[in-house]
Amino acid sequence: MTAEIIAVGSEMLTPAKVDTNSLWLTDQLNLLGVDVTRKSVVGDDKDRLAGALHRALERTPLVLVTGGLGPTEDDLTREAAAQALNRPLIHDPAILAAIEERFARFKRKMAPINKRQAFLIEGAEKLDNPNGTAPGQWFALNSRMLALLPGPPGEMKPVFLNHVLPRLKAILPPRALRTRFYRVAGMGESDVDQLIAPIYKPYDNPVTTILAAAGDIQIHLRSFCATEEEAEARVAELGASIEAALGNRIYSRNGDPLEAALGELLRERKATLAVAESCTGGLLGGRITEAPGSSAWFLGGFQVYGRAMKTRLLGLDEKLVDREGVVSEAVAIAMAESARDRTGATYALSITGEAGPESATPGIEPGTVWIGVATPAGVEAKLHRFPGGRARIRAFAVQSALNLLRLRL
Amino acid sequence: MTAEIIAVGSEMLTPAKVDTNSLWLTDQLNLLGVDVTRKSVVGDDKDRLAGALHRALERTPLVLVTGGLGPTEDDLTREAAAQALNRPLIHDPAILAAIEERFARFKRKMAPINKRQAFLIEGAEKLDNPNGTAPGQWFALNSRMLALLPGPPGEMKPVFLNHVLPRLKAILPPRALRTRFYRVAGMGESDVDQLIAPIYKPYDNPVTTILAAAGDIQIHLRSFCATEEEAEARVAELGASIEAALGNRIYSRNGDPLEAALGELLRERKATLAVAESCTGGLLGGRITEAPGSSAWFLGGFQVYGRAMKTRLLGLDEKLVDREGVVSEAVAIAMAESARDRTGATYALSITGEAGPESATPGIEPGTVWIGVATPAGVEAKLHRFPGGRARIRAFAVQSALNLLRLRL
Repeated sequence: MTAEIIAVGSEMLTPAKVDTNSLWLTDQLNLLGVDVTRKSVVGDDKDRLAGALHRALERTPLVLVTGGLGPTEDDLTREAAAQALNRPLIHDPAILAAIEERFARFKRKMAPINKRQAFLIEGAEKLDNPNGTAPGQWFALNSRMLALLPGPPGEMKPVFLNHVLPRLKAILPPRALRTRFYRVAGMGESDVDQLIAPIYKPYDNPVTTILAAAGDIQIHLRSFCATEEEAEARVAELGASIEAALGNRIYSRNGDPLEAALGELLRERKATLAVAESCTGGLLGGRITEAPGSSAWFLGGFQVYGRAMKTRLLGLDEKLVDREGVVSEAVAIAMAESARDRTGATYALSITGEAGPESATPGIEPGTVWIGVATPAGVEAKLHRFPGGRARIRAFAVQSALNLLRLRL
Repeated sequence: MTAEIIAVGSEMLTPAKVDTNSLWLTDQLNLLGVDVTRKSVVGDDKDRLAGALHRALERTPLVLVTGGLGPTEDDLTREAAAQALNRPLIHDPAILAAIEERFARFKRKMAPINKRQAFLIEGAEKLDNPNGTAPGQWFALNSRMLALLPGPPGEMKPVFLNHVLPRLKAILPPRALRTRFYRVAGMGESDVDQLIAPIYKPYDNPVTTILAAAGDIQIHLRSFCATEEEAEARVAELGASIEAALGNRIYSRNGDPLEAALGELLRERKATLAVAESCTGGLLGGRITEAPGSSAWFLGGFQVYGRAMKTRLLGLDEKLVDREGVVSEAVAIAMAESARDRTGATYALSITGEAGPESATPGIEPGTVWIGVATPAGVEAKLHRFPGGRARIRAFAVQSALNLLRLRL
């Protein structure tokens, strides 16, 4: 089966606002085996919307509409759908009573304008929306289906899940889904793809999707089959080949971010971590503490952004800093060592580099970053040259620091 | 004039990828006074795309298409547009020569498949694309206009700016644009809107747009007029009323972020800043150092995430922490004082709070955050209760800390 999604609202035809409901709906439809063949955004204009709905219903068996069900005069989805289907709108006293009850519950007076929301297309079924005043609507005739859903995501999603999904499942063949969600650090997207494309390309099922961020590659496998056993066997087979090819560059098999994977390793070892950050200014600690519960293994550290802070807060030898330069192996090593000593942590990470846009350090190109790691067994530092602008270089540095410690554990 | 935008590509009909080209194009068109009445995403299917193009050209004078101009068999925009216009595709030897030259320049061999890119719709003009192999195309007939643009933003934008924009400007009445871009901290979106809606609502021109993030409200004023003088007079008049209503809650008049506005104030005073962060773990320092050149005024600080670090790194009195609790006015004050002392900075900010999702501090609700500020004149702390989840609470805390110091300067 195929579907079209129409998002209604003039605000989504401005530069500031993008329709994101359709991404969530596409995901839900794909899980059922329904392909989306077209997405549109139409403004709050009854005739334009009626025209769009009419065409969509001509060419596609399932049409989902989000938005335009509110109480104001801009909300024209009901009227436009009725026009497209050439059917009248019928007043439904039960809907009006529910809206009045909702207003009473919140101790507010219902404005008369809300009565507009109590009209159903003739022959349509009401889809309850406990999180808002406007119910959704479902209209099915001659193997054409139209769903009208509220626009706010917090209303749209429950209405879809509770009312549209069961109706679609009832008419679609059963599908079982099994997935794998790998995350890889320390490799670029093209390197990952070069390595695993020969492995996943021969497979139609599972479908493989690769997404990339700075120093972080996500590999999604999805298999749809008639039974769970078959789907599991398929993702397990392809997954095993991908795991063999990537080895320990895979840091997560369930989609957890790198700081969570690292935290798990530290927790198992009852170990703790501290940081000393120069060019990242605190981003590494900020990223680590995104994980709730990180206080079990993250102690804290030092933001030694200014040059003088490296001697003042971490006690680095001024002559060493002068001789080696702020962005150097020796300084990265001394920062990690001192952070470990001064906090009492089991491990410490340090970052010192030049994030640009202009180099503040003579002779050091933006993107040059030394990352140090101090462990009970010793201390070392690695040199990186990251591409991109300031934000990207700093994101790469944080990711590489987390990965360096992961590989040492 | 009105326009429609069609984005071509099956990848934008998946849950993972959204069309963002249309946001940029909408902004460009709005600047010319052109309203976008509809946006669509169509997959790589020739007949579907030809149908969408045909309908769009029937109802709208200007249709912009992005994507599907590449060399592969999935790239069908040329063929679909030719079909929609009922015109043949003509081979253009000059385009082929340019593509071959480009491959030679990068010392690569042109695959035969690239010849597909050398076809123009009969009657169309070629739009040079120096950043890629596929040129754009422009077709105008009987006051209907169709632009075919490459999909990659780095190719699409220059082709639009260099070739489509001049063609549109030539036929549209001249418009001068003047803007104001205010940013406001320390107020919620609804409070800002309640205060200034009576001021901006009577104005059709300038158009006022309000965008909100955690603790940060952006107010955009845009006036389009026949002359720059008139547009400037209009934004100046409305801008003055808005500035009078919001006073020093406006931290930027040119759209600069809060850390840049604060940095400017510190630079003027030749002053420096240090931080001590508990629940934000380094985010405040990370945010401050997003601004290039922040090393002129930001020294660094202490990530005292774990409880013991507050005594160990900052020297806080253990009895004080025990008696008052980690999330307390006294601890926020002691953190700010110690950070100022130990770094030698002119000013210091501290953050200690409970970011959730579960409270790690008995009796302290998630969202409770104390923010301290130490200045040469003394030290104080303010209590906040922020809404939302962990990420939002931490973003609010960072923004509120920056704003607290701004107000003290």
